[in-house]
Amino acid sequence: MKLQLLLTGDELLSGDVVDTNSCWLADRLREQGLSIYRKTTVRDDLDCLVDELTALSQQSDVLIVNGGLGPTVDDLTAQALSIASGQPLKQHPQALAHLEHWATERHLELNPANLKQALLPADVELIHNPTGTAPGFSCQLNGCLILCTPGVPSELKCMFDDSIAEQLSQLHSRSLASTERMLVFGIGEAELQQLINDQLNDWPTALTLGFRAKMPTLELKVSGSDDSLKSHWIDKLKKLLGEHIVGAGDSNVAREVIALLKQKGWTLSTAESCTGGLISSLLTSNSGSSAVFGHGFITYSNVAKQQMIGVNAQTIEQHGAVSEQTVREMVSGALAQSGSNLAVAVTGIAGPDGGSKEKPVGTVWVGWGSADHIQSQLFYVPAARGYFQHIIATVALDLIRRRLLESTETPNYFKRYQPR
Amino acid sequence: MKLQLLLTGDELLSGDVVDTNSCWLADRLREQGLSIYRKTTVRDDLDCLVDELTALSQQSDVLIVNGGLGPTVDDLTAQALSIASGQPLKQHPQALAHLEHWATERHLELNPANLKQALLPADVELIHNPTGTAPGFSCQLNGCLILCTPGVPSELKCMFDDSIAEQLSQLHSRSLASTERMLVFGIGEAELQQLINDQLNDWPTALTLGFRAKMPTLELKVSGSDDSLKSHWIDKLKKLLGEHIVGAGDSNVAREVIALLKQKGWTLSTAESCTGGLISSLLTSNSGSSAVFGHGFITYSNVAKQQMIGVNAQTIEQHGAVSEQTVREMVSGALAQSGSNLAVAVTGIAGPDGGSKEKPVGTVWVGWGSADHIQSQLFYVPAARGYFQHIIATVALDLIRRRLLESTETPNYFKRYQPR
Repeated sequence: MKLQLLLTGDELLSGDVVDTNSCWLADRLREQGLSIYRKTTVRDDLDCLVDELTALSQQSDVLIVNGGLGPTVDDLTAQALSIASGQPLKQHPQALAHLEHWATERHLELNPANLKQALLPADVELIHNPTGTAPGFSCQLNGCLILCTPGVPSELKCMFDDSIAEQLSQLHSRSLASTERMLVFGIGEAELQQLINDQLNDWPTALTLGFRAKMPTLELKVSGSDDSLKSHWIDKLKKLLGEHIVGAGDSNVAREVIALLKQKGWTLSTAESCTGGLISSLLTSNSGSSAVFGHGFITYSNVAKQQMIGVNAQTIEQHGAVSEQTVREMVSGALAQSGSNLAVAVTGIAGPDGGSKEKPVGTVWVGWGSADHIQSQLFYVPAARGYFQHIIATVALDLIRRRLLESTETPNYFKRYQPR
Repeated sequence: MKLQLLLTGDELLSGDVVDTNSCWLADRLREQGLSIYRKTTVRDDLDCLVDELTALSQQSDVLIVNGGLGPTVDDLTAQALSIASGQPLKQHPQALAHLEHWATERHLELNPANLKQALLPADVELIHNPTGTAPGFSCQLNGCLILCTPGVPSELKCMFDDSIAEQLSQLHSRSLASTERMLVFGIGEAELQQLINDQLNDWPTALTLGFRAKMPTLELKVSGSDDSLKSHWIDKLKKLLGEHIVGAGDSNVAREVIALLKQKGWTLSTAESCTGGLISSLLTSNSGSSAVFGHGFITYSNVAKQQMIGVNAQTIEQHGAVSEQTVREMVSGALAQSGSNLAVAVTGIAGPDGGSKEKPVGTVWVGWGSADHIQSQLFYVPAARGYFQHIIATVALDLIRRRLLESTETPNYFKRYQPR
């Protein structure tokens, strides 16, 4: 099945907007085993649109048109399709009903611009828009199924998941594959692929395995229509990857930490040097974090380490601010000052300056634990400042997560980021 | 001049990568008064590429090809162009010299995959790649200038600014417009456009005004080839916008704060409740922040506000954690505990829970200043949690910036985010 994408919108060619819709669509289509053959982006120009609709419909089995369904004069998809198909525009009763329903629910009056959205080529079928005014619609042109979708990302996503996915799956006569998404931290994409090739080399062809980088984590996706086969192989995957699987695909490491802390009724505090508040910021970007996180000590300077969490001046002088001794005193200081059950601390050299031969930029100590059992680990992450901070903040949160799980696994990143 | 874009790469159609190159290119081209007529994205497939190169070169004056210059087997641009143009591939001496120079500088040996990058159609001219191995190249095909550029964003950007911009400007015989970029905070795009329409309504047509959202800030761009005209009108813009102009286009509010603190030899500390470390994280994501930032107090809970920075329990009980009294005590506590010259504090309700009728979600107090002069302001920012935190963290940093500038202006966001 040859599927093409036609995107329309001046803003997509002017440099004002980065197109994320087509990437999202491609990802959803891949879950069904479909791929996009080609993607064409044109301006909101009637002649261009008519030409493209004609040419692309002749070359394709399915053409997804995205954009140009709005109420303004530069929204031209319906008009262009009307010209390309020779079907006059007329008021579509179902589209009008949709618009009226939408307006009534919001105590609004429909204006003439809104009403324009009900003017569609005579032979189209409506595609329901669960979230916005613009009705989607489909029709046949030159033997090609044309699906016209809204350019607003949230509306496109709702409409696709609500009905287009099902429509496409019927078309290529394959039952709709469902997808399980898992969040993985600590194993890179290439490494993960290799591990699966080596350890699960009889992976069934009926299950599609996909990855999506969400730096520094990774979303792992397993798609297939045979649910029992899928759950059997997901079990194998889970055994293989152990606690490198952090949670569901849309989760994040901080959110999992918060959930585990809530289960135990525990609290966490942070003592950050080189991450400068990022660990705390990742925690508090999740709602509900206040139940488990009260105190964060950003001890960026040596004097702050002493004043705020009682690190010994002598420890810093003797071993340096980036040392096992210092990071362990940071943990115990944060625990003592906050009264929290757990604490995590980091001290390292984010760069670009401040490195030495002995402790190059990228060197970092992470300490974590409770008053009766503090752990610590040295890492070396030679990466640009921003990336270094994100990796280390996520490692710190992941180590707390593993501690809460009472994990005995050694995380893969101990090896990946081991000092030279 | 009709200019088209041909992007190649399986990753651009598979949902793995969002294409940001074309948006960046469109923006740069617009500065020269050029627009992209159409954008086509195809897979790394030799037949497809040959067909597209042939068809698009027939329809265009300039075709920018992006991607497919790398060392691997799926990098097919040179081979496709060789077939489309009937010019055999041969080793290009200048390309080979570039590769050898690149390798020597890095003490590396060239491997056969690298050497493939020197195999180019016989008649091409090289485009220098200042940062990577892949040489760019240009040629004429069907009366169209074809410019082949690397898909790696950093290499594309360097190559464009280094030579392609100049080559294009000569082509459309217009002196290269230069662009001044300014970072604006506190005025939205529509508001800014209206202000300019109202106050600078005789804006000359020879100067192009552009915006780019970098939430929560905005990049404002003025392009034109007449330098004295440009500087005259930029002066007017600067007078109009005052200290809403934060710095150069590639700066950020935190970086400007750090620079101003350095000038005075001052230090800053932070006391964060609802932003949970984001202010500190924005500061420390800039290198050099350690010179001016030592202490950050994340006092997410009421008890932390008392323990870490000595806020009175009675103040919280009487006025609430989100109150002017509390935020002022947070500032003075942070100053006292850290010994810094300036401090900034925030306490508010990020939501989605925790609001009340009197203090709805989005209510936030910001306090800032020095021991002898603490200022405070109430804001109401009804936005999703993540966006709320970003707005407020940036407002807090901006208020410190204005304090360091000894500004007497009232920021526009006092009105925009005033409580109901």
